[in-house]
Amino acid sequence: MFETDGDFEARVRESFARQGIMGTMGVRMRAVEAGAVTLEMPFHDGFTQQHGFLHAGAITTALDSAAGYAALSLMPEGAGVLTVELKTSLMRPARGEMFRFEGRVLKAGRSVMFAEAHCFGEAGEIAHLTATMMVIEGRDGVSG
Amino acid sequence: MFETDGDFEARVRESFARQGIMGTMGVRMRAVEAGAVTLEMPFHDGFTQQHGFLHAGAITTALDSAAGYAALSLMPEGAGVLTVELKTSLMRPARGEMFRFEGRVLKAGRSVMFAEAHCFGEAGEIAHLTATMMVIEGRDGVSG
Amino acid sequence: MFETDGDFEARVRESFARQGIMGTMGVRMRAVEAGAVTLEMPFHDGFTQQHGFLHAGAITTALDSAAGYAALSLMPEGAGVLTVELKTSLMRPARGEMFRFEGRVLKAGRSVMFAEAHCFGEAGEIAHLTATMMVIEGRDGVSG
Amino acid sequence: MFETDGDFEARVRESFARQGIMGTMGVRMRAVEAGAVTLEMPFHDGFTQQHGFLHAGAITTALDSAAGYAALSLMPEGAGVLTVELKTSLMRPARGEMFRFEGRVLKAGRSVMFAEAHCFGEAGEIAHLTATMMVIEGRDGVSG
Repeated sequence: MFETDGDFEARVRESFARQGIMGTMGVRMRAVEAGAVTLEMPFHDGFTQQHGFLHAGAITTALDSAAGYAALSLMPEGAGVLTVELKTSLMRPARGEMFRFEGRVLKAGRSVMFAEAHCFGEAGEIAHLTATMMVIEGRDGVSG
Repeated sequence: MFETDGDFEARVRESFARQGIMGTMGVRMRAVEAGAVTLEMPFHDGFTQQHGFLHAGAITTALDSAAGYAALSLMPEGAGVLTVELKTSLMRPARGEMFRFEGRVLKAGRSVMFAEAHCFGEAGEIAHLTATMMVIEGRDGVSG
Repeated sequence: MFETDGDFEARVRESFARQGIMGTMGVRMRAVEAGAVTLEMPFHDGFTQQHGFLHAGAITTALDSAAGYAALSLMPEGAGVLTVELKTSLMRPARGEMFRFEGRVLKAGRSVMFAEAHCFGEAGEIAHLTATMMVIEGRDGVSG
Repeated sequence: MFETDGDFEARVRESFARQGIMGTMGVRMRAVEAGAVTLEMPFHDGFTQQHGFLHAGAITTALDSAAGYAALSLMPEGAGVLTVELKTSLMRPARGEMFRFEGRVLKAGRSVMFAEAHCFGEAGEIAHLTATMMVIEGRDGVSG
């Protein structure tokens, strides 16, 4: 359904490994397909809000990376991905031991991509993100 | 302009201190007024994206707390605040040594509050968030 | 999957018929299920933007009604629905003769519901909306 | 503060006049500055939701045009403006006789602009929009 360029999985995994915050938060990349990425993160009390759930910002961080890497998987080699804007709907408190984040591209344009991501916990869907991603080409220091 | 209940600053600071993620990210509360909160965070390479800037999710985390505590400052004693949804517009890469987050309430209703927050770096405005906050009353484990 | 109260289809259709803007824009209700609504609208040059496509606001109007009535279908009798916030992602110019709007509920809470809606034209998906809906009970003049 | 190109006010007013929906809804352009536009719209029962207020989509339509023309005022001659995404927060029911929409640019980039707009009625602020606008150059049929 989507066109890809070169070894997109290697590019996505290499860029993911450079995101300092993914290591800090313990987020792992579970699967990469053309236009779709799955991440996982265990609960950690270093990332909670005041009632002991995962902070909306921590959830948004992993959702944004899932959506952004789904977009990068469809970009040409050498291009970089930047989030222009994101929105997160927080449906349930982020309780539980393990969280899964499924990102996918809704529309892949040449300069702009639309993506979404869902966060699931043991009790069902926790949050939903939609985001707009820019395809950055020919800018120093911005690849992957 | 806004009505408050009891020692709102103490309630806001006490709840902020319970957010594990604020300590982990090194975010400090600089000012609390009725309907407005200022936070600060130094750059830390544990919270970066792939090009070395602060991750959009880290920026969103601090923006959400700034907006959420602006909202909590206007809630009745014993109430808790939960983010229903948030949107972040990312205007510039989050470069720099120090970031300031200014949250304020746009409309304080009895059950729903609308808030926004701006993130500033040395080069100007970096990001803007709008969010919808729920006023939670009478639910066990959800105060502050 | 979702619980309903009374003749939800009759309540949804009666409320839809009271939305002046639906008649003005020529929007028709095609289907009502528990938690899902389909609308249709023909192209009309009274609702265009400057390049001759349907205006993003016209698309958003029908998407919001599709999502809102999906939510109302799950609310108790006598309750009213109000949109708290909405976001629309505009993926393609709204070209074509006929547009279909499919709304569905993502999470039905007692006081807040999360819904989304997609707009399709002949060439594929045109736009995607996510919205937060309030369940309004016991307020004069606000039912349906 | 912002750079402009040529007679930006003439370009904005000419493009606004081509939006069929503005005439249909009775929206008038009151003021155009570099990076800021003010529109006005009287109440009209052809654009209501089910409780007799202006529909969230009608409010969003005028907010989007206010924000979009604020962006166009800063674009080069010959460029066109397209909304990539928009979010509206609906703070109060849209009651009243006359509504004012104030759009302004938050950040003007070469290919992407961030803008916001506020809707005011007699009772105060009714709604707030943030939007991402693309600068379209060299595409047939897309100027203004």
